[in-house]
Amino acid sequence: MSDALLTPEALEAALRQIGAERYHNLHPFHRLLHEGRLNRGQVQAWALNRYYYQSRIPLKDAALMSRVEDPALRREWRRRIEDHDGTNEGDGGINRWLALTDGLGLRRADVEAGRGILPATRFAVDAYVRFVRDRSLLEAVASSLTELFSPNIISERVSGMLRHYDFISEDTLRYFGHRLSQAPRDSDFALDYVKREARTRQEQEQVLEALRFKCDVLWAQLDALYLAYVEPGMVPPGGFRPDNTA
Amino acid sequence: MSDALLTPEALEAALRQIGAERYHNLHPFHRLLHEGRLNRGQVQAWALNRYYYQSRIPLKDAALMSRVEDPALRREWRRRIEDHDGTNEGDGGINRWLALTDGLGLRRADVEAGRGILPATRFAVDAYVRFVRDRSLLEAVASSLTELFSPNIISERVSGMLRHYDFISEDTLRYFGHRLSQAPRDSDFALDYVKREARTRQEQEQVLEALRFKCDVLWAQLDALYLAYVEPGMVPPGGFRPDNTA
Repeated sequence: MSDALLTPEALEAALRQIGAERYHNLHPFHRLLHEGRLNRGQVQAWALNRYYYQSRIPLKDAALMSRVEDPALRREWRRRIEDHDGTNEGDGGINRWLALTDGLGLRRADVEAGRGILPATRFAVDAYVRFVRDRSLLEAVASSLTELFSPNIISERVSGMLRHYDFISEDTLRYFGHRLSQAPRDSDFALDYVKREARTRQEQEQVLEALRFKCDVLWAQLDALYLAYVEPGMVPPGGFRPDNTA
Repeated sequence: MSDALLTPEALEAALRQIGAERYHNLHPFHRLLHEGRLNRGQVQAWALNRYYYQSRIPLKDAALMSRVEDPALRREWRRRIEDHDGTNEGDGGINRWLALTDGLGLRRADVEAGRGILPATRFAVDAYVRFVRDRSLLEAVASSLTELFSPNIISERVSGMLRHYDFISEDTLRYFGHRLSQAPRDSDFALDYVKREARTRQEQEQVLEALRFKCDVLWAQLDALYLAYVEPGMVPPGGFRPDNTA
């Protein structure tokens, strides 16, 4: 690496390049999901495992906030927790994800307890929470930047899933509708933050590395799903086994 | 679960049952490795990723020791670190693992830096170090109990690898010769410890859960290798790519 500071625009371009090469919309599992080529059991496995990720996001955001001294930044970040947890019982992103797992016929108690989730899901997601807890605030904010790339994947996912899966309804996909407006707002803020606050080339490299790390976290979750439920279909000991292949 | 305390013998039997169902000698990747059905690039990928695990074991053991108030227990546990790190430059288990990666033609600087290791390897291994750091001393000791099952796998591995792979020599497998005497000594100690110190049924269940967790850590590493390098051969972005398929 050169020692020269990147311009904010060059840093943004480098971040977007990481997304173009490593974001999980490129993963074969996602393509299968969007193109309607998974059966109900495979979609169940995805939703069950992904619930664990969803459930840990507010912990991650709270870990970040716990180190922020600026009330304005805390207020901005608090919105993310509000989005996920809701304000009243029954609303918020986590509940909307449970509407999806309900719609797929999974027992809510199993989903909430993480029964049958893949150990690799837990290891990857926990690594993300730890990263945000242990690294610098700059790296923690940067690790959220995968949301720069999520609006496209969500649009593809919703239209693909509604078109192809008769076991999925518009109502069970409410989660994604909300994210379409929340994610751009959040990622615009985080992008401006890292462009402004990374003041040395070393800090800029930390920002890039944090985004690569986060892409790895998302990719590894789909890798584990692919191995267990697509090909070659090796479910690890204790892992969820769909009771249908319809 | 019943609330009745298990006898020490019943606890040991339950631990051995977990090994019989979940230890990674049952994983398809291990069978391929032992039966000589991997090519050199696949064995390289295994040794490269497994190095990361080896390199983190002394950190895990030091984290455990840092919470032990009894000098006798610290002395016992210190032996594990001595085994891995050696006493003089160039000896110890980590160096013996590097002799293996050297023998396989991997660049030592790449191995030591973890260049190209699978993100899933890092997530699983780091989860193990964290587990030992954060959980009770009893659970930390219990998570080492996979060594109860390692002598068999090591014997199989060494004889299988020597018989089948012309790119592996007895000298490069020195690591495993040492472990054959170290592992039983260590696991006998740990087994006696958990049988004695788990004084409630809840603690006994924690012991069992710690061993299940550790089996998951080992299994997930082989899952990731299988997906990337055996079938379907999906190497994640940034992952090691063997330069041969000989």
